[in-house]
Order: sequence, then structure tokens, then C-alpha cells
Amino acid sequence: MAIPCPNFIASEKAAMEAGLLLPSSSLSQVILTQDDLKKIAAYKAVEYVESGMVLGLGTGSTAKHAVDRIGELLRQGKLKDIVGIPTSTKTHEQALSLGIPLSDLDSHPVVDLAIDGADEVDPYLNLVKGRGGSLLREKMVEGACKKFVVIVDESKLVNYIGGSGLAMPVEVIQFCWKFTASRLQKLFEESGCVAKLRTLGEKGDEPYVTDNGNFIIDLYFKQSIGDLKAASDSILQIAGVVEHGMFIDMATTVIVAGELGLTVKDK
Amino acid sequence: MAIPCPNFIASEKAAMEAGLLLPSSSLSQVILTQDDLKKIAAYKAVEYVESGMVLGLGTGSTAKHAVDRIGELLRQGKLKDIVGIPTSTKTHEQALSLGIPLSDLDSHPVVDLAIDGADEVDPYLNLVKGRGGSLLREKMVEGACKKFVVIVDESKLVNYIGGSGLAMPVEVIQFCWKFTASRLQKLFEESGCVAKLRTLGEKGDEPYVTDNGNFIIDLYFKQSIGDLKAASDSILQIAGVVEHGMFIDMATTVIVAGELGLTVKDK
Repeated sequence: MAIPCPNFIASEKAAMEAGLLLPSSSLSQVILTQDDLKKIAAYKAVEYVESGMVLGLGTGSTAKHAVDRIGELLRQGKLKDIVGIPTSTKTHEQALSLGIPLSDLDSHPVVDLAIDGADEVDPYLNLVKGRGGSLLREKMVEGACKKFVVIVDESKLVNYIGGSGLAMPVEVIQFCWKFTASRLQKLFEESGCVAKLRTLGEKGDEPYVTDNGNFIIDLYFKQSIGDLKAASDSILQIAGVVEHGMFIDMATTVIVAGELGLTVKDK
Repeated sequence: MAIPCPNFIASEKAAMEAGLLLPSSSLSQVILTQDDLKKIAAYKAVEYVESGMVLGLGTGSTAKHAVDRIGELLRQGKLKDIVGIPTSTKTHEQALSLGIPLSDLDSHPVVDLAIDGADEVDPYLNLVKGRGGSLLREKMVEGACKKFVVIVDESKLVNYIGGSGLAMPVEVIQFCWKFTASRLQKLFEESGCVAKLRTLGEKGDEPYVTDNGNFIIDLYFKQSIGDLKAASDSILQIAGVVEHGMFIDMATTVIVAGELGLTVKDK
């Protein structure tokens, strides 16, 4: 829940820094778009960044603002000696263009802080990620982090994982993907699960292929799937599954930007 | 343990059918090579095959004999209406050349019987497989089986998984494989684990790539890793891991060919 008073202040400060407010204005005078909210959350998250850190750089429309902001602070000399570990080829390109020094987990197996968006956040700070298709690299980098700050607008808050009615993605190998999809659907039969191959193109007949050459099976649930840890193990035990989009017990902080201000939830 | 009397008989019968013995000869008159033992076990396993079955066809030097035998029985008209599901591109080609009708798990999600070799068999019929690099497809097909008959020569029997001192393979995505290898090695630190990238070529500098485009990390253990189910879950929880070569609680029958005869172990 947003705590109006201090959050209004935090939000106003962040909004000012994000160039959305003049110092003399008040929040009631501006109409914030969803993208504005994402930008405010992203700028707030970058306040956690310190010079000398190894940083996991997320992927997606919210994380993009954070990466932009880090590039800006480096240019201004307000941050120094940052090493970025991008979570996708897209973020790699963005960070390169901003002049952020880059490395990878092979060279930097310990990451101080990662900042990334999420598709869903439940009340226990468990996440769904990967609707953008980059869940595996994100999970590798964010699993190697001391701190993982998640930034979302309030539309991403759900009562339970899958509660938005949108997809929980599972990355699978291409070989016999239909068989794997049917095993996944059967696993969550009691939650009314429907499994669909993610496709591209107008006709929707060309499968989406991940950075790692795999397919994505999107799972849709009608009800909660219950114990997430047990669900995770059951999914991973299916041969043919590479990884799933539930990030359980990984986020250390979630920053939620809403119309009533910023809410910071710590684990 | 081999039970000498009935197994001598079984072995002699199987050896005769495998063309290794004339009816009038006795086992003491022939010296059986390791390949002979593999062939004897394979022929015995094919006795479980019945007309009309959907069959998982294994990969490797022992399974090759079983596939050959199935082809022979089809040609002779002793088996009919068999559908084979190959576990590798290599077995696919072998089965095609023998005229065995083929399909896949997408079309035949329920497999009546699979026959395959193994690299290690522990006293509880848990296996290590995949030294040939085909562990993922094998696990998908053999996980879909009603019956899974494993055929080995006695050199494959171990007291515990990893006990042969040879590799337990883990299939991983190429992205940041060094990081994944180091997480795997650390996971089994107490068992003296060493993790090595599987390579090809004379200089050993070219990584081996699986049918699915992934790398293999070979794990070597100095001591038992203890609870296999827990070990399996821990390995699968590492983002970057696709699958491992432990086949826990999957084999329903193991046929062991040794110099003292055939031993059939049922679950």
C-alpha cells in the first residue's frame, strides 16, 4: 500500500529529477502517463547505485529508463567505475551506445546490484518476468546479485502469480515442444491452465525464438497455482524445460510508482 | 548379483540368438568381448517388445544392437506395427536405414517401452546417461515411457552415482557457461566436484555442441553426492542448466550382461 505523505515527497523529488515536474509545481497539476510512472520508479532505483559497483542491467520499457539514467550520471561524472552486465542483446546495445563499460558473468560472477522491471509482483515480492522473452539471461544475472531492485508501475501488482490473466512464460527446447507444452498444461490442470506457443508475425504462425535458440510456451492460469516453490520444481523437472519466468524470493526491493506516489517495499 | 544357473541358460540362449554360440557349444568355450556382452543384453531386452508397440529407441553402442535386432525381427515378420521414437539424430538415421517406421513425442506422447544403454547403474537402478551427448532427448522419450528397459554390460554397475570416476554430464546454455560451470562445481564442493566443459578436436579447444545447440559440462565426483533427488532439484534450479544426466527412478528393468551370465533386475 502507498503511504501518501512520504511517498508524495519521494515521488515529487523523483519526478523532478525525471524532468516531469518543475520545482514549484505539485503532483496534482500534472497528469502522469504509465511511461512517466515507469521513469519515476527507474530514477528512484538508480539512487541505490554507487560508484564502483558491478550492475545487472535489466531489459524492457521500465529498465530502459534506469539504464538511460545510469548513462546520464556517468556522463555527468556523478557515478564512476561502473561495470554493467546486460541481461539481453537489446540492453547490451543500449548500454554500449550510452558508453557504459560492459562485462559478463564469466568475468564478474558477483553482481552488486541489479535493476529490472517485472510483469507481475505478488504481495510476497515474487515476480513474473520474461514476457519480453529474455527471462533466462535475466534470471542468471539477477540470481547472481547481492541486491535486486525491481521497478514497476502499480498496474503490475497482483494478488497471486498469474493473477493478471497474462502469460507466465516457460522457455523450452524446440525438440518436441508440443509434448512439453502438453505436459506443462497438464501439470497445472487444476488451476485451469492453458499453454500456448509464443508466435511472431501477423498470422501468428512463426514461433518466437529466444536469444538462446529456444521457444517460449506461455502459460495462462484461471486460478492461483498455490505453492510457488513446488510449482517451480515441478516445471524444472520436465525434461525439455530450460527455465520459467517465476522469480521466487529473488527481489530484495520493489519500487512501485502509482498515481498516489512511490512505494518502496523491502524484503 | 548374478544367479549362475538360470542366467547361464538365459545367457546361452541369448548368445545363440545373437549368433555368438552354436547350439552345441558351451559358454566356457567362447571368450566374450564387451561388445558381445552388450549384444547379448540388447537381444534379451528386445524380448520385451510386442507387435503394435510405440518404442523409444536409445542411443549408443549397446542400444544400437537393440535397434538392429528390432529391424531384423520386423524384416522377418516376427514383429509388426511398431512405431519407433528415436532419441537422437544418429538413432533416427540408423532406424530409417533399417526400415523401422518412425514418429515423435508430439504425435505419440505415450511410449509403451524404451530400450537404452546407460553409463552407470547404481544399486537402486538410478542411472547416469548422456556421455554420448544425447541426454536431453533420451530423458524426454524415456520419461514418457510405461516401461524403460536398460541394457548394460557389468562394467557399468557402480556403488553410487559418479562412482565410476567418469563424468556426470549437465547440458547448459552457451551464454555464460563458465559461470554456470562454477556454480555447479560449488554446489558439489563437499563431494570434491570438478566441472569441465566437454570439448572436441585434438587440441580440445572446440566445445562439443548438443543436438539442441547447448554445451555439456561434465561433473566428476570424488565422493557420493548423497540424496540424488535433492541434488537433481539443486542442479535444475540453476538458471542456465537445461538438463542433467541422472535418470532417477526411471528404469523399470535393468539387464546386465556379465561373464557369468545375464542378470535381470526389476524395480
